[in-house]
Amino acid sequence: MKAFTALVTPEEARQKFGRAFSPAPIGVERVPLLEALHRVLAEQIRAGTDLPGFPRSTVDGYAVRAADTDGASTGTPVALTLLSEVFMGAEMHLRVGSGEAARIPTGGALPDGADAVVMQEHTVRGNTNVAVERPVRAGENVVPRGADVRRGDVILNSGRRLRPQDLGLLAGLNHPEIAVFSRPHVGVIVTGDEIVAPGQSLRGSQIHDMNTYTLSGTIEDAGGLAQPHGIVGDNLAVLVDRAKEAHAASDVLILTGGSSVGEKDVVADVIAALGAPGIIVHGIAIRPGKPTILAVCNGKPVFGLPGNVVSVMVTFDQFVRPVIEALAGLKDERRYGGSVRARVAKRFAAGEREDHVRVALSERNGALWASPLPAGSAIITSMVRADGIVVVPVNAVLEEGAEVEVRLLA
Amino acid sequence: MKAFTALVTPEEARQKFGRAFSPAPIGVERVPLLEALHRVLAEQIRAGTDLPGFPRSTVDGYAVRAADTDGASTGTPVALTLLSEVFMGAEMHLRVGSGEAARIPTGGALPDGADAVVMQEHTVRGNTNVAVERPVRAGENVVPRGADVRRGDVILNSGRRLRPQDLGLLAGLNHPEIAVFSRPHVGVIVTGDEIVAPGQSLRGSQIHDMNTYTLSGTIEDAGGLAQPHGIVGDNLAVLVDRAKEAHAASDVLILTGGSSVGEKDVVADVIAALGAPGIIVHGIAIRPGKPTILAVCNGKPVFGLPGNVVSVMVTFDQFVRPVIEALAGLKDERRYGGSVRARVAKRFAAGEREDHVRVALSERNGALWASPLPAGSAIITSMVRADGIVVVPVNAVLEEGAEVEVRLLA
Repeated sequence: MKAFTALVTPEEARQKFGRAFSPAPIGVERVPLLEALHRVLAEQIRAGTDLPGFPRSTVDGYAVRAADTDGASTGTPVALTLLSEVFMGAEMHLRVGSGEAARIPTGGALPDGADAVVMQEHTVRGNTNVAVERPVRAGENVVPRGADVRRGDVILNSGRRLRPQDLGLLAGLNHPEIAVFSRPHVGVIVTGDEIVAPGQSLRGSQIHDMNTYTLSGTIEDAGGLAQPHGIVGDNLAVLVDRAKEAHAASDVLILTGGSSVGEKDVVADVIAALGAPGIIVHGIAIRPGKPTILAVCNGKPVFGLPGNVVSVMVTFDQFVRPVIEALAGLKDERRYGGSVRARVAKRFAAGEREDHVRVALSERNGALWASPLPAGSAIITSMVRADGIVVVPVNAVLEEGAEVEVRLLA
Repeated sequence: MKAFTALVTPEEARQKFGRAFSPAPIGVERVPLLEALHRVLAEQIRAGTDLPGFPRSTVDGYAVRAADTDGASTGTPVALTLLSEVFMGAEMHLRVGSGEAARIPTGGALPDGADAVVMQEHTVRGNTNVAVERPVRAGENVVPRGADVRRGDVILNSGRRLRPQDLGLLAGLNHPEIAVFSRPHVGVIVTGDEIVAPGQSLRGSQIHDMNTYTLSGTIEDAGGLAQPHGIVGDNLAVLVDRAKEAHAASDVLILTGGSSVGEKDVVADVIAALGAPGIIVHGIAIRPGKPTILAVCNGKPVFGLPGNVVSVMVTFDQFVRPVIEALAGLKDERRYGGSVRARVAKRFAAGEREDHVRVALSERNGALWASPLPAGSAIITSMVRADGIVVVPVNAVLEEGAEVEVRLLA
């Protein structure tokens, strides 16, 4: 029987893989702004204009020269001659001179000559003039031109995942379409003689495929396009054929199952058939997930993940997700809220492998408690019930009440 | 001039609206599991079978009767007669008797008679027998039938937004398709004489539409389907026509702009034309967002949000998002990670309205600090730069260094 040569730590595994493969964005496409939500921006955006493009009133009222309102009060109002009105969106022909005022709505363009706006509530309107009952300072109730964005400012960087407000800003700066990074195609092949697709009835000791469905979700969440290539039994020749097809059609290929070292575990041989340099790491000191394979074949990353779905999720998150995100052009962004601090509700101890413990969170006495869920890597409900994952270093013990960082599951 | 009658607090506004409209899911559809990610489950799922459906080995090794291995050691191994092998997925014909063992792979079905599995590492294999060098307890290296899920267990509830692992569990329990709630259609009309679509060049004091794009994103994030109905000038008759059309085609209608009380602010009149009972709340003590309208017309929620995009985002989040989520069938779930605690980097004070302050987060001396961004409701960059929002109660003052809850923006 083959055996794992020495396991490498998760960090060593990432480093070895990183030396063999440097992911770069796979391509760029232009999309209409309405289709750009959550896509990754592929260009640096500089403002082509000031925002706002002209000084705007923040209130309904009268555009004036502030100096004209000095000393105004309810008892001694200042009367200003009414000019025409500022119309939203209209050409800016008006000019407010000394002793003059022009009606202006919220958002209206401040006319030439005016330097402030008196709120309507502080005025009494006549037929040809308006009485101002409170003084304003220069600039009062006005957003200056360029207060939001100055022409030439970098407003968004390449590599940013676009949020609703980003789309708003891009629209405001007249970008009806933008360049985004293409999403990498991620092929998935599920291996195992015992596995059948949901919808088919089970015979003997068959089980239904969970990995295709779980991975499709995690791939999409990472910014990739999942391409399921079905279920293949543990037959080397058939698997090699299917894997070559999927490898050619994908930017990343994931196989699940058969990555251990039993005689039926043919995935290592399948990956070896996909091209050089081949397997970079086989066997990682992580629990669950020991029999994980990280490989590069003909310039594309190929992953052999364990067969159990919990191991698949943990190893995907540790080793595959960062690669998909980089191929999708995502730049490391600060992400707050991805984790919370909690207290350990029940002692747990890691063994010789870094332990990725699924936990449920609950609030008790004003504190957040993390309760470990059943540990088996075949226990899918441990992931379904989990709020997050606590990483316990090799041989570490977490006593009840200890504070830990819980990485939240999306 | 019309004026706001007394402003209501945000909480009063939600209560008044809640009495006028009780959102219920708008419909149910069946989708293939591969299309169900992030959809809201519309049925309670009970397990139709145990998971696993049979006791499974967690290791590569030999299925045995644990009692037979008592006292086994390297020096005094116990020899067991080798039966045939357990094949993955095959019918389960084998029976392990006393003094017998059967080769079993990880995940294989434990044969009748056997109650434990000896790891391969603790055996020496001969031609017709296997020498066991370490004893096992009954149940060792075996996941019992039903250890993950028991037949009849409720495994997922209606109202849950489906995560990747939920899809895996549904697949494992043979649900190739499932019932999800239909997504509500949310119509958007942007009003304002000054607004033109991005892609068109600006004349005079025109500005580009940001609200259609921002709202499309927030609507989608809330689980709705955004239906933009374009930009309409401040003309009552034209607006009423467009609003009636959009109201008929949507489950929820949002209008932006023109919701204040100036003479051009016709949105209240437009909403009044859409049916009874009409406007429930007009004017809320929130900053930004004072001129917000909450209405119900012919059984559908209608919202008049302010024209400025920052106000749109804040009021959407406070008043519209919960309605869309309820129409989409989402049940209140605990959501950890939606907020973080931080220290105020610069004193700020609310006025007469509850203040929704956009903040940028940064780490300094091991603590998280929240720095307020420019306050103007027209300053879209305050949202683009923001990591989250701090709600400051009416007349409250937050001193520098005070600890606050920051609600994180997605």
